Amino acid sequence: MEIGFLGLGIMGKAMSMNLLKNGFKVTVWNRTLSKCDELVAHGASVGETPAEVVKKCNITIAILSDPAAALSVVFDKDGVLDQIGSGKGYIDMSTVDPETSCKISEAIALKGGHFLEAPVSGSKQPAETGQLVILAAGDKALYEEAVPAFDVLGKKPFFLGPVGNGAKMKLVINMIMGSVMNAFSEGLILAERSRLNPHSLLEVLDLGGIANPMFRGKGPEMLKDNYSPAFPLKHQQKDMRLALALGDQNAVSMPVAAAANEAFKKARSMGLGDLDFSAVFETVKLLKHSS
Amino acid sequence: MEIGFLGLGIMGKAMSMNLLKNGFKVTVWNRTLSKCDELVAHGASVGETPAEVVKKCNITIAILSDPAAALSVVFDKDGVLDQIGSGKGYIDMSTVDPETSCKISEAIALKGGHFLEAPVSGSKQPAETGQLVILAAGDKALYEEAVPAFDVLGKKPFFLGPVGNGAKMKLVINMIMGSVMNAFSEGLILAERSRLNPHSLLEVLDLGGIANPMFRGKGPEMLKDNYSPAFPLKHQQKDMRLALALGDQNAVSMPVAAAANEAFKKARSMGLGDLDFSAVFETVKLLKHSS
Amino acid sequence: MEIGFLGLGIMGKAMSMNLLKNGFKVTVWNRTLSKCDELVAHGASVGETPAEVVKKCNITIAILSDPAAALSVVFDKDGVLDQIGSGKGYIDMSTVDPETSCKISEAIALKGGHFLEAPVSGSKQPAETGQLVILAAGDKALYEEAVPAFDVLGKKPFFLGPVGNGAKMKLVINMIMGSVMNAFSEGLILAERSRLNPHSLLEVLDLGGIANPMFRGKGPEMLKDNYSPAFPLKHQQKDMRLALALGDQNAVSMPVAAAANEAFKKARSMGLGDLDFSAVFETVKLLKHSS
Amino acid sequence: MEIGFLGLGIMGKAMSMNLLKNGFKVTVWNRTLSKCDELVAHGASVGETPAEVVKKCNITIAILSDPAAALSVVFDKDGVLDQIGSGKGYIDMSTVDPETSCKISEAIALKGGHFLEAPVSGSKQPAETGQLVILAAGDKALYEEAVPAFDVLGKKPFFLGPVGNGAKMKLVINMIMGSVMNAFSEGLILAERSRLNPHSLLEVLDLGGIANPMFRGKGPEMLKDNYSPAFPLKHQQKDMRLALALGDQNAVSMPVAAAANEAFKKARSMGLGDLDFSAVFETVKLLKHSS
Repeated sequence: MEIGFLGLGIMGKAMSMNLLKNGFKVTVWNRTLSKCDELVAHGASVGETPAEVVKKCNITIAILSDPAAALSVVFDKDGVLDQIGSGKGYIDMSTVDPETSCKISEAIALKGGHFLEAPVSGSKQPAETGQLVILAAGDKALYEEAVPAFDVLGKKPFFLGPVGNGAKMKLVINMIMGSVMNAFSEGLILAERSRLNPHSLLEVLDLGGIANPMFRGKGPEMLKDNYSPAFPLKHQQKDMRLALALGDQNAVSMPVAAAANEAFKKARSMGLGDLDFSAVFETVKLLKHSS
Repeated sequence: MEIGFLGLGIMGKAMSMNLLKNGFKVTVWNRTLSKCDELVAHGASVGETPAEVVKKCNITIAILSDPAAALSVVFDKDGVLDQIGSGKGYIDMSTVDPETSCKISEAIALKGGHFLEAPVSGSKQPAETGQLVILAAGDKALYEEAVPAFDVLGKKPFFLGPVGNGAKMKLVINMIMGSVMNAFSEGLILAERSRLNPHSLLEVLDLGGIANPMFRGKGPEMLKDNYSPAFPLKHQQKDMRLALALGDQNAVSMPVAAAANEAFKKARSMGLGDLDFSAVFETVKLLKHSS
Repeated sequence: MEIGFLGLGIMGKAMSMNLLKNGFKVTVWNRTLSKCDELVAHGASVGETPAEVVKKCNITIAILSDPAAALSVVFDKDGVLDQIGSGKGYIDMSTVDPETSCKISEAIALKGGHFLEAPVSGSKQPAETGQLVILAAGDKALYEEAVPAFDVLGKKPFFLGPVGNGAKMKLVINMIMGSVMNAFSEGLILAERSRLNPHSLLEVLDLGGIANPMFRGKGPEMLKDNYSPAFPLKHQQKDMRLALALGDQNAVSMPVAAAANEAFKKARSMGLGDLDFSAVFETVKLLKHSS
Repeated sequence: MEIGFLGLGIMGKAMSMNLLKNGFKVTVWNRTLSKCDELVAHGASVGETPAEVVKKCNITIAILSDPAAALSVVFDKDGVLDQIGSGKGYIDMSTVDPETSCKISEAIALKGGHFLEAPVSGSKQPAETGQLVILAAGDKALYEEAVPAFDVLGKKPFFLGPVGNGAKMKLVINMIMGSVMNAFSEGLILAERSRLNPHSLLEVLDLGGIANPMFRGKGPEMLKDNYSPAFPLKHQQKDMRLALALGDQNAVSMPVAAAANEAFKKARSMGLGDLDFSAVFETVKLLKHSS
């Protein structure tokens, strides 16, 4: 099976390497073409433009840094639209807003092509080890066709219905995660100020019903005031805002998520937006006022 | 090692059986003595009164249904106090309020005895399989002496400092759990009303950073409106209230736990207090007003 | 002083009548021209189109039902833009979103005209009695020129700075009002369920430091479950959402407004969106679940 | 009509003076007897002990600083209990907890006496000008008898039912006030950070539906960071906590009050407990973290 791959950032490089290692033929493209060299050394071909990649491959995957890049690769000169058409599929695994996703989806449909949005949950390490969670939505037939590739890239692919549902699912997941992080932060502080050892709390939690990888991974770092950003707080807060807006459209009252969102906003107002989202922990600590 | 055991309810029976199976000599007592028969069949001795058990054993464990029973077994005629004294230890594994625990602790100290509070996290099944989490606090020497028994009864025992800390740790754990349950409920509803499949949400969650046994166990039941009580909602709300009060004493602001507590109160006002605490899910569903 | 007046709905009719009674020359226009008759009977002239009104008058006031109408009157054929220009002022007193306001402002500036947004606080009765609160923002010189008219229409006009500030001030006011309404509702229910007479609560409140016209006017109606819409709940909730979004842009954490917003969303989910915003009272009452 | 008066602190002195000026015969007592001199100069008699005052007067009013003082004046040697009995009434206008109130009520009933709790809303100035709000509860006949005195002391007396209801009503009022203060603080900050003039906000608010004395009095001070304590924040937070506990007993969910309570707790954690409760304003300002 021949796969096109657009975008060789941290995620894209790991993912295309995985495909190569698992026997796929891969044709890569990156804005800075030199980034393709390492992949070529492992057997990849190179396309000079996104259009050239699409021309060559029936399925092209893209994972780009932001909505602007995602649009540019499709709509610019020598972009995906130039060559997409009947019998060709395009899978955008970037994390973008629903509007961007819809714009791309419609343009590709007009050309007779097939489209999937497939944002992933997981960062560099799961990308390298093929442990991503893939939230695909859009063209069901293209999804079925892409499953062998998805199986290499992730633990398990999900097909979630029409375009937009992948992005929505990611918002719901991140909203729950943000509230859970707040619950955790409050508990750590309550333990500390009640003269319990917060490290014991971590151990006890890890043996009980809500034991989870996030508590295990981030807890000890938070107790060291280490908030190196795996997922920046300002992005987490943006996702909570969008999830609450989704709830607003559907008249879903979510008081706990709303309280968590205000805590993340408080953290932003304290200048913590670029740290890891676990820095919301700082908002429940003793605070001095600024006057 | 000889262990006394007071209280053969669901938990007590499973725990004393475990001790027997693991080679401990056990002398049991229960208010209704006939409940001792099954244990005797497996090799236990019987004490006619709590005092008789304490007289015979250097370490006596109790696990009783409520504070009244916990006090009665100690202070009543032929109770623990009659025989406790130097060289004797008493370990109360009941879940009681700090006042009850302190009252017992002081009375035993006055007699020269040793005391541990050791509430457990976990219910019937972990009790049978020796998978409890034991939150011990009080007399450190007694704790060390009891570790072989604790190792049989639970995954891992914790020694948390002075009497009161066991109960406090349980409150912190339950507070976090209550907020997490609310976060989960809100996410399930948001998924449903946004036309995502909530079963897919469960699957995606279970592959990610906040995957945990509670989501896995309770999620599918909640989607079936099944709230058979493992931990009744009114008890969960009581624990949140007590945890918030603990925070109030120490000037800890916990807005997410406070929002979660109000949701549990709303559930109580809807008549759901005797169902499982996951019934807080009902508060985020579409509600009709009662007028 | 000659004033043009576009839009003779409930508000516009009362306001233009006020101007006539206070000695202003007024030229009116309305989409349905027959609505002008009553004003003509009191001395008004009629313009056939918005453009004709602007041509005749140096200051033209408009108060229209929604953003679409506000845009149409300016941009359509024979609209305000046709005749606006140097020495002419246009004052839009409609309640519209900032984008609409800015679009109009820019178009008028391009023609060399002067613009004020001037949303009002107050409904039919204050409009008739000249008791509106006028929140003007934009061209300061035009504001000064219009003060004599504003003095007739309202208690007191405010000049709040650049275009957009009038709308923002209205959002802040409505956000505070929405939180206050929730505080009030919760207190009424707490009184009732604690076996206090809620009518006594109303009386006591009205003698104290937070006595206000809203408690006085709406309290007795709420206790009768009367929520005839003076300001529909769905609009109140929209304003809270927009105010929270304004806070989000500026990293202002507002946990009380966020909790109030979730209560209004809950009310919407209960089907109360078209009732008065005081119907949020229903969300704190005893609720039955819908299953 | 002859009135006994126990306690000549700031409130008691102003109130007994008022009674004298309005033609009542008053017999006063104070722990430090010299505080009686000014009252004597205006025609009061002095009792050497609370018992002596009660012996002489059919109605005795007390207003004391705290529960301990309120209990002492009743239960100590030569206290109220010595002389209370059939045909004698005792009115405690101190602000005390329900337990204190009940203890006094029961002791007086056992002696055949009559009791009212009658906490007041209002501070020094309303006490001097007879503008207090009196929240009486307990013996209805004693209330009727005391109305002439209440009419002098306050704007309007309320009879609220059985003992306890006076204290409860005060909690409900203070809870609403605390939430309203938070709503106000959030609005002031939102205005400021959205580049609106917060002084304009105060003016606009004061012309609208939620205009109230508290906004008018405290708003300008808050904008000057002036929080001289009229009502200390820690007491306000205590009242919110008690009001929420009252709601908990009755399964009333009050999410806005809960969010406001957490903000007051945050203010306490910032060391602002002894300032005026309007200092909760500081929690919504930009905060620096303490690490």
